[in-house]
Amino acid sequence: MEKQELEKLLREVAAGRCPVDRALGALRHWPGEMLGCAHLDHQRRLRTGTPEVVYGEGKSAEQIGLIMEKLLETGEMALATRVDEEKAAAVRSILPGLIYHQQARMLTTGLPAIDPARCRGKILVISAGTSDEPVAEEAAVTAACLAQPVERLYDVGVAGIHRLLGRRHLLDEAAVLIVVAGMEGALPSVVGGLVDKPLIAVPTSVGYGTCFGGIAALLGMLNSCAPGVTVVNIDNGFGAACAAGTINRRT
Amino acid sequence: MEKQELEKLLREVAAGRCPVDRALGALRHWPGEMLGCAHLDHQRRLRTGTPEVVYGEGKSAEQIGLIMEKLLETGEMALATRVDEEKAAAVRSILPGLIYHQQARMLTTGLPAIDPARCRGKILVISAGTSDEPVAEEAAVTAACLAQPVERLYDVGVAGIHRLLGRRHLLDEAAVLIVVAGMEGALPSVVGGLVDKPLIAVPTSVGYGTCFGGIAALLGMLNSCAPGVTVVNIDNGFGAACAAGTINRRT
Amino acid sequence: MEKQELEKLLREVAAGRCPVDRALGALRHWPGEMLGCAHLDHQRRLRTGTPEVVYGEGKSAEQIGLIMEKLLETGEMALATRVDEEKAAAVRSILPGLIYHQQARMLTTGLPAIDPARCRGKILVISAGTSDEPVAEEAAVTAACLAQPVERLYDVGVAGIHRLLGRRHLLDEAAVLIVVAGMEGALPSVVGGLVDKPLIAVPTSVGYGTCFGGIAALLGMLNSCAPGVTVVNIDNGFGAACAAGTINRRT
Amino acid sequence: MEKQELEKLLREVAAGRCPVDRALGALRHWPGEMLGCAHLDHQRRLRTGTPEVVYGEGKSAEQIGLIMEKLLETGEMALATRVDEEKAAAVRSILPGLIYHQQARMLTTGLPAIDPARCRGKILVISAGTSDEPVAEEAAVTAACLAQPVERLYDVGVAGIHRLLGRRHLLDEAAVLIVVAGMEGALPSVVGGLVDKPLIAVPTSVGYGTCFGGIAALLGMLNSCAPGVTVVNIDNGFGAACAAGTINRRT
Amino acid sequence: MEKQELEKLLREVAAGRCPVDRALGALRHWPGEMLGCAHLDHQRRLRTGTPEVVYGEGKSAEQIGLIMEKLLETGEMALATRVDEEKAAAVRSILPGLIYHQQARMLTTGLPAIDPARCRGKILVISAGTSDEPVAEEAAVTAACLAQPVERLYDVGVAGIHRLLGRRHLLDEAAVLIVVAGMEGALPSVVGGLVDKPLIAVPTSVGYGTCFGGIAALLGMLNSCAPGVTVVNIDNGFGAACAAGTINRRT
Amino acid sequence: MEKQELEKLLREVAAGRCPVDRALGALRHWPGEMLGCAHLDHQRRLRTGTPEVVYGEGKSAEQIGLIMEKLLETGEMALATRVDEEKAAAVRSILPGLIYHQQARMLTTGLPAIDPARCRGKILVISAGTSDEPVAEEAAVTAACLAQPVERLYDVGVAGIHRLLGRRHLLDEAAVLIVVAGMEGALPSVVGGLVDKPLIAVPTSVGYGTCFGGIAALLGMLNSCAPGVTVVNIDNGFGAACAAGTINRRT
Amino acid sequence: MEKQELEKLLREVAAGRCPVDRALGALRHWPGEMLGCAHLDHQRRLRTGTPEVVYGEGKSAEQIGLIMEKLLETGEMALATRVDEEKAAAVRSILPGLIYHQQARMLTTGLPAIDPARCRGKILVISAGTSDEPVAEEAAVTAACLAQPVERLYDVGVAGIHRLLGRRHLLDEAAVLIVVAGMEGALPSVVGGLVDKPLIAVPTSVGYGTCFGGIAALLGMLNSCAPGVTVVNIDNGFGAACAAGTINRRT
Amino acid sequence: MEKQELEKLLREVAAGRCPVDRALGALRHWPGEMLGCAHLDHQRRLRTGTPEVVYGEGKSAEQIGLIMEKLLETGEMALATRVDEEKAAAVRSILPGLIYHQQARMLTTGLPAIDPARCRGKILVISAGTSDEPVAEEAAVTAACLAQPVERLYDVGVAGIHRLLGRRHLLDEAAVLIVVAGMEGALPSVVGGLVDKPLIAVPTSVGYGTCFGGIAALLGMLNSCAPGVTVVNIDNGFGAACAAGTINRRT
Repeated sequence: MEKQELEKLLREVAAGRCPVDRALGALRHWPGEMLGCAHLDHQRRLRTGTPEVVYGEGKSAEQIGLIMEKLLETGEMALATRVDEEKAAAVRSILPGLIYHQQARMLTTGLPAIDPARCRGKILVISAGTSDEPVAEEAAVTAACLAQPVERLYDVGVAGIHRLLGRRHLLDEAAVLIVVAGMEGALPSVVGGLVDKPLIAVPTSVGYGTCFGGIAALLGMLNSCAPGVTVVNIDNGFGAACAAGTINRRT
Repeated sequence: MEKQELEKLLREVAAGRCPVDRALGALRHWPGEMLGCAHLDHQRRLRTGTPEVVYGEGKSAEQIGLIMEKLLETGEMALATRVDEEKAAAVRSILPGLIYHQQARMLTTGLPAIDPARCRGKILVISAGTSDEPVAEEAAVTAACLAQPVERLYDVGVAGIHRLLGRRHLLDEAAVLIVVAGMEGALPSVVGGLVDKPLIAVPTSVGYGTCFGGIAALLGMLNSCAPGVTVVNIDNGFGAACAAGTINRRT
Repeated sequence: MEKQELEKLLREVAAGRCPVDRALGALRHWPGEMLGCAHLDHQRRLRTGTPEVVYGEGKSAEQIGLIMEKLLETGEMALATRVDEEKAAAVRSILPGLIYHQQARMLTTGLPAIDPARCRGKILVISAGTSDEPVAEEAAVTAACLAQPVERLYDVGVAGIHRLLGRRHLLDEAAVLIVVAGMEGALPSVVGGLVDKPLIAVPTSVGYGTCFGGIAALLGMLNSCAPGVTVVNIDNGFGAACAAGTINRRT
Repeated sequence: MEKQELEKLLREVAAGRCPVDRALGALRHWPGEMLGCAHLDHQRRLRTGTPEVVYGEGKSAEQIGLIMEKLLETGEMALATRVDEEKAAAVRSILPGLIYHQQARMLTTGLPAIDPARCRGKILVISAGTSDEPVAEEAAVTAACLAQPVERLYDVGVAGIHRLLGRRHLLDEAAVLIVVAGMEGALPSVVGGLVDKPLIAVPTSVGYGTCFGGIAALLGMLNSCAPGVTVVNIDNGFGAACAAGTINRRT
Repeated sequence: MEKQELEKLLREVAAGRCPVDRALGALRHWPGEMLGCAHLDHQRRLRTGTPEVVYGEGKSAEQIGLIMEKLLETGEMALATRVDEEKAAAVRSILPGLIYHQQARMLTTGLPAIDPARCRGKILVISAGTSDEPVAEEAAVTAACLAQPVERLYDVGVAGIHRLLGRRHLLDEAAVLIVVAGMEGALPSVVGGLVDKPLIAVPTSVGYGTCFGGIAALLGMLNSCAPGVTVVNIDNGFGAACAAGTINRRT
Repeated sequence: MEKQELEKLLREVAAGRCPVDRALGALRHWPGEMLGCAHLDHQRRLRTGTPEVVYGEGKSAEQIGLIMEKLLETGEMALATRVDEEKAAAVRSILPGLIYHQQARMLTTGLPAIDPARCRGKILVISAGTSDEPVAEEAAVTAACLAQPVERLYDVGVAGIHRLLGRRHLLDEAAVLIVVAGMEGALPSVVGGLVDKPLIAVPTSVGYGTCFGGIAALLGMLNSCAPGVTVVNIDNGFGAACAAGTINRRT
Repeated sequence: MEKQELEKLLREVAAGRCPVDRALGALRHWPGEMLGCAHLDHQRRLRTGTPEVVYGEGKSAEQIGLIMEKLLETGEMALATRVDEEKAAAVRSILPGLIYHQQARMLTTGLPAIDPARCRGKILVISAGTSDEPVAEEAAVTAACLAQPVERLYDVGVAGIHRLLGRRHLLDEAAVLIVVAGMEGALPSVVGGLVDKPLIAVPTSVGYGTCFGGIAALLGMLNSCAPGVTVVNIDNGFGAACAAGTINRRT
Repeated sequence: MEKQELEKLLREVAAGRCPVDRALGALRHWPGEMLGCAHLDHQRRLRTGTPEVVYGEGKSAEQIGLIMEKLLETGEMALATRVDEEKAAAVRSILPGLIYHQQARMLTTGLPAIDPARCRGKILVISAGTSDEPVAEEAAVTAACLAQPVERLYDVGVAGIHRLLGRRHLLDEAAVLIVVAGMEGALPSVVGGLVDKPLIAVPTSVGYGTCFGGIAALLGMLNSCAPGVTVVNIDNGFGAACAAGTINRRT
């Protein structure tokens, strides 16, 4: 559209129907996005396969349904995060075509096919304790929505380091690692010491007392002695998967 | 289980059915540090070209010199971070072969040659204000030490967004972005909204009052509304470059 | 009243019915507000058109109704903030004359007419994300209650900077800006870099994890690299509108 | 410049020397600032009289001198903040034309003439204690640099409320108020209860123990029960003056 | 009791029925309180008229009832704090003799008579806003339970300083002041600047956002520029009244 | 090195010079999890009598029941912490064999017999106030589950120091002390000054306002002036008992 | 003065030389302090014997000398706090008449005579550790400057509770207690459990790590389980003495 | 002494020279420590071999020398912590008999002989990084001062987990573990997962940015998923050794 308007304007200039001065003035007031960043949101999704995302917390089932319905109609990939079981049931009573990923607390319009040629390798999602799994699953399902191959390695917290060491081949085989941990958040440091790959650490709000809703884990990860560990917000499995997706995508 | 497998293997060796070499190889892939992470530090550096790193803060010129001398002798790549000008001069009076990167506050044994075939693309280091440049330079020089091609785009803070928009082609050409900002730390959000690439945000301690030595910027980055932004510790240009290196390396 | 008492006293002195000593003593113990700050609250509201304000959080529907009823009777402008839908319905079942502004979560006795001659220009309320709109609406409706012309520019967060740039004329046309943002709170910095006008930043509690209920956004705004940005309390749309009103009022 | 390039391009199109397609492509890659936000920094300063600003903390006398020398040459208004006495002397030994405002800890190229017709009224800078005066002076001198008429009312802290009440006429006469206070930061609340004008509160780091370097004052101001108070960063007299300048400017 | 045991032991020693060694051994293992701090709790209450106190939060109506029943039987003065209306009704359905002080959220066995001869003067309880009244009332009713004469001065927050100044005689007449305020907590500073008496400041959790549940007010009070202000815990009207009681008691 | 040793060992096995059993034994002591920490969790429990632990908070009755059922079947000792009364009833309706420890909010499969010969002495659990008892009981019941002899000394807070002094013999008789306190958390300091034994301090979240959910108590304990006090997480009675168990165990 | 002006005005009114209207107008603009709070600072000091106070931190020896010289001349009592030994020597080289109280880090013009008839009793200053003594001495010397009888009881921290208990008679004899403690700040709780008197707790910044410059002690004191304890700012011995002075003064 | 006084009193009673009433009165006012906690400090040191401790930070060389001289004379074991090299040299120029433990930053009168029969086993001090060694050494030297056998295992941080696993036998052989770590503080969790022994975690202030002077490590340790880990204050090697000493002592 905007591009068409610009083209139209230039054609008018070329045709001598629009003096240069008036064209200059028009361009002066045209929206900045017209040239350069136009339609970024839409284009980006089309180009990269990023789905439309609905942050479900604090939204009613009706609100979530309304947004996803529109997306379902256009056939676009869509996902909603932080949707508890009850709310998901309510949404699905309206839109039965949606799929509910219970542990990930996510609703999707389905998962896209994976084209291995477009990926560097597998994304390995590692979690420390069973309570961290919802966040790990949010990461795993989001990565799958981004058409990324995902592997899971759960319940390998540092207090039983042998469980992790016993499956080191999974670490060796992955292209990108997402490491999810609550409490003291030490797992990314240990994993980061074993591999030399992109590693995204996700602190979770699991714990009590001085865990401070995930701050202890977050600080642990930011101060990791393993160089090259990067961190996302507390419980942000979604964001970690987005980051992993940009890394794993073969461009 | 594992014990039984091990026993079985040993019996095969004892019976001459399994040559020692194959047994060694098998054990090589067995769970554990026994063979896999022994010498890990050394092997990793050799394989990936990661230099030996000395964290210079709180170390005397003598201590830094001592460590780097040993590394110089072996011809290995080495770098020291957080070395102020005075201390650097003192170290270089002992080891004149070292190079001092003034703005990055780093000492190196020199920078390795870059093999483009082993890299996905360029690492673009972006900084918000002139005071953020030491951290940005720590990232840039570290990346260069890791044999990565580096581009710099400095002083493009969000309060003058046109400066950034005016050089969007640099963003389009990079494979990985490191975005360094202090104060409110908003730059990664804006950059993250313009591109769809791996982006590592580095908060700096630049600012005063409620910047709290970088906490304001850190929180801004962790809460970025641009999905896929990952974050490292305050002023941790080194860590950001390590992460960018693992991402940009073609494996 | 007090003024009348004072006048009466002075007349008694003038008439010689009250000796100077007794007048001195009386004045010595008279309330301080009599002279200077008398009737400040009431007078201020009359002079400036500031409505009577009820902070609805933690008050029952009955309590809110009771206060607003008295104000309705005197015909004065009144507003109640932080009234959720259920509570609003309960209040309106008692006082059907009240208007409920759903998204702003406010009850008003109606909005006053705007006298453009008494205003410098328009107050533009900008918000970053859809979740920030309740706070933005609290600002917008409060400003309207203060007889200020209001324009809205919503959902123009920094991660899609083109949406903002595309409507720059709104920024150019406004006299005062209120910029509402949660998460990393970067929008005021970007807007503040585009205009040279009074800009009041409102952090919202939107976000999770390290957003810390709005602290991340607040710190982002306090540390804004755009000079001249001022900040109000988290979620304080009301306060921002009061400040904008004092700025926009032509005196 | 950019405008000229654009004009040139359009003229080529008009002349038929450049086909529309090529023009479209060229525009596609042109810097964003060309259209809309071009030369913002420079233009803004010219239009508004905002001086070039150097944040002196952490910069050496040489660095400050270098920047200001260039500005002095162009005859532009320039100011440097947070310059202690010793550093100022060093800078002035190089650039004797600079003026040092000792209490404000600022260097300026001089103060511009004030055009009352372009101002709404006076900016009144109020401070609570003698220790708050450096920040108050930073605000006052900055405002003067912005060609704003400034009045000072110092040492009127809330623990001696009569001192403030005794000079209420100053409050009545001002167009904008900057209220500077450390410790408990209560002064803006009291002043805000006495007037109905734009009021910018500046917390200072004055105090000890639980003042936490100005956080106590900042929180006090953010939670002010006087509606319409806005706040800037701790010790940010400069920012408060910038905000006051945009408010007081008659446009 | 213990004293009697000790006396008995000494008499046995005096009578030669208990050798010194055995007495020494017995004393060696006797409880410490026997000598010096014996019966402290009980004696203190008797001597000072301090009632038995039940902290109601987190206790069920049954638990509160059980404790107070025992106290009612012995005819001792008793009070329970933090009892909401519903819980109070449940307790009173068991113990109809109890009195519920609704705004103070307290249950008492009744209020003792006041003996002016045993008091230095009146305790004046001042509060800033209507939302602070529950805490102010907790202080006032507790003081009354301690047989102290209490005066109330409510809703005189600093944003309308004239309301306070208009009733300065109340300040002049009181012996001890309790000043209750939320939000920025500035009232104690202002009151402390007007009088020269014992002043106990009580921060309340009233406010939102950066009030941080009373921390802003607490910090404001701890940093009060009025010397001699002392502070108690957030919302601790009870503790303030206990402190005021020990001060006002004529011994 | 290790690799060479391993190779050498394998060659000895291949040559028949080292029997498989001895090789296994040698490998048993080799670094690593391969043989040493495999099955660590299980072995540790068997060896030390540590029960299987279920952290009940955030788990449904069904989830808790499912896990404990499996453990009940194998006859292993099991315990679940943080189970409120209602949830416990639901679990016990499925598994009536479980015992509910109401004040400790724990479910166990029963308590093991105590073998005094394997213990150094008694674990004394001390608590400051009645509200701290649930945490104290969590410690006491956990210790009992670990087959440790437990003594209780409750409600001996520092504000009535005679209550503690009166029962000093209990302190003298214990081998390990667990001291549980909320509010200011001063009790461990006082107890630590009276004895010279292992003392584990447990802060509780009891209190309001600035107790910050146990942080005040935690800080008090970490800063204890009694040397040798160690601390666990807020409300972590379970962890304190585990630590006390490792200390009291005679090995 | 102001009173004289008022009197003069009233006399003019009485004499008919000033019409009532003009008098009303004049009074309308007169300073608020004229009536009621006039000369508060000065009068208060005269009436209560409060000395003029100089907060020495951050002031140069010259500045301190200048202020105290003026006070010395008028013969008024004056004191300066937070003056280290070196600065004190510099001040005394100018004003040899000043007395330096080394441990209290204070300069005074001398200590006033004590009139027992005007005091309720003694102020007892208690400190926990030797490092707390400077703050304790600041309290003690300030109290002496206020003409209050002072007793000292130092080095009686809770980790050696017998030291305190052994001198309980001092507690029994005092009228007001100031209790100074760093680290965990538990001493006020213990003392508050032994006596029933006004007790002002002073946290000190003594300690390291999580003492957080006195926050641990402050929180401990605010959460004291001994009712009636009030608290002042960290290291604020001066403020505690002022509060104690207002309590101990017989009016 | 006191015991003798008590004995004397009882003998007087037994001899009839002191009536029971007078004895009662005398006992009523006798110091509390007389019975039970008498001479606790002194006796404890004698009994347990705990040395006299001087906290050197903030004390001058003269002050340290003065205290230690007295202790040297009596031949008692003494130690001073936090003494930097320069200060130590100054002390030793006065008291050449003292030994300076450079890395531990401690001065001692020498180390006592170890009696293995009085110890359960060895105390193993583990540290994560080279920067943590001063704190580890403070623990190790303190333990040695307590006549405890000490083993050291340094530089085995979690980012190179194989270094720790490679020396597991040291873990197996120790009776008590002290684990010292800065940055993310993950080492205690990993060690705690490998052994089942008393483990005292010591966070250090090593790190930068969000390590917050050791808070990140402290939180990591308090939230350790390895049950039974207890924690001491940041950098408190001394306290950890005291705790380890009470555990390791065979009583």
